[in-house]
Amino acid sequence: MTTLGAALERVSPGEVVIAFTHRDELTQQHGFLHAGVMTSVADSACGYAALSLMEPGVGVLSVEFKVNMLAPAVGERFIATGRVVRSGRTLTVCAGEVTTERDGRTVAVLLMQATMMAVRGKAEVAD
Amino acid sequence: MTTLGAALERVSPGEVVIAFTHRDELTQQHGFLHAGVMTSVADSACGYAALSLMEPGVGVLSVEFKVNMLAPAVGERFIATGRVVRSGRTLTVCAGEVTTERDGRTVAVLLMQATMMAVRGKAEVAD
Amino acid sequence: MTTLGAALERVSPGEVVIAFTHRDELTQQHGFLHAGVMTSVADSACGYAALSLMEPGVGVLSVEFKVNMLAPAVGERFIATGRVVRSGRTLTVCAGEVTTERDGRTVAVLLMQATMMAVRGKAEVAD
Amino acid sequence: MTTLGAALERVSPGEVVIAFTHRDELTQQHGFLHAGVMTSVADSACGYAALSLMEPGVGVLSVEFKVNMLAPAVGERFIATGRVVRSGRTLTVCAGEVTTERDGRTVAVLLMQATMMAVRGKAEVAD
Repeated sequence: MTTLGAALERVSPGEVVIAFTHRDELTQQHGFLHAGVMTSVADSACGYAALSLMEPGVGVLSVEFKVNMLAPAVGERFIATGRVVRSGRTLTVCAGEVTTERDGRTVAVLLMQATMMAVRGKAEVAD
Repeated sequence: MTTLGAALERVSPGEVVIAFTHRDELTQQHGFLHAGVMTSVADSACGYAALSLMEPGVGVLSVEFKVNMLAPAVGERFIATGRVVRSGRTLTVCAGEVTTERDGRTVAVLLMQATMMAVRGKAEVAD
Repeated sequence: MTTLGAALERVSPGEVVIAFTHRDELTQQHGFLHAGVMTSVADSACGYAALSLMEPGVGVLSVEFKVNMLAPAVGERFIATGRVVRSGRTLTVCAGEVTTERDGRTVAVLLMQATMMAVRGKAEVAD
Repeated sequence: MTTLGAALERVSPGEVVIAFTHRDELTQQHGFLHAGVMTSVADSACGYAALSLMEPGVGVLSVEFKVNMLAPAVGERFIATGRVVRSGRTLTVCAGEVTTERDGRTVAVLLMQATMMAVRGKAEVAD
């Protein structure tokens, strides 16, 4: 997240917002932000959102996620929101979104659907 | 890709291999590589694989992808492979994978299924 | 849809609602509705939602979708909603959901994220 | 599966093959098999593949899956294959595929990536 210049903007139970800004070294061949960068931040927002509903001492790991790119990631500042859709003891399903401001209006650039797993004790993905 | 320390390893028609190495600033809270980093490289491998079957002058954009984390991304060196499953004039479906060597054997850490779009002229995602 | 006992409940620009009822031959080994049945209806709701924003004479095909099962599909009557998130000339991104009523409250049982393609002339998936 | 006219063709540890035939009531508006039908069978093949590697007495539920349609589902007989990519105590990641024979060659019509969950005792999705 430091590499991406991202900062936690808001944390409420079941919803987390992360803001990050455009940096030239994160652009891809067409000049806009790489899909992977936006995905990383959306994944983090979803992970923290899942974590916000778990009991203290529990960790969280991404089981899987799916993203759709909705618009070219052109912009100066991006907002990633992760929201818990269904919270279970082991698995949590989240919806994520990345938006930017363009010409005074909010443009959605990425949509995510993700599954997070609570990790109690030893961490192992796909366990 | 430069930020991620990644390098194109092999390009053949319909299949691209990218190698990248572990860097401390890309790790997440559990000490292994962030899911987003592995996803970025797998996405690039799939994108280049799709591009390798398109006619000259055409660009490629990620429409969407879905990844499963298969094992903790612990390792020094990772290999991302993107392979075209179905190539069409507008859309190309790819399968991606990230592996690492651990104790002398290959461990799969990420599995991707992605849709890429050929861009002729003006680039617009979800167009 | 006839096989599934489904009926179009509401069509508005960019949003379509389909209702369907539980039928014994559609249950799986645990006694609740098969994931594929709910997926079929959610896919149809998303497809019609995409179609509702396209010009007359255009067809629609599912490019891909991803679903999360949120709760066991126990219930008598289910509601599938498809909603357009991003509409483009060729591709449309939709969000789908299936809910049921249980003990007087709405329970979400399936969450979908889908990509639909406009078909002008000859229909070809992944074209 | 009976409604779909499907039959288990082969079961080996970590891989399951289900065959099914075209039936007119399962076609969609363009005259080929509905995406949901193929998805249902691929989901079942993946579920059984996951189950084939679990200890006796354990059940399996679909956590989530993502499918890409690769070609129009025109054909008489379809083969769905589910294969375990990564097997864990709780979660199993599977790859699925549906193919058909057309003009003497095998055509892939659907590609799936799925997460299955072992159910020990009380069944609850997203638990």
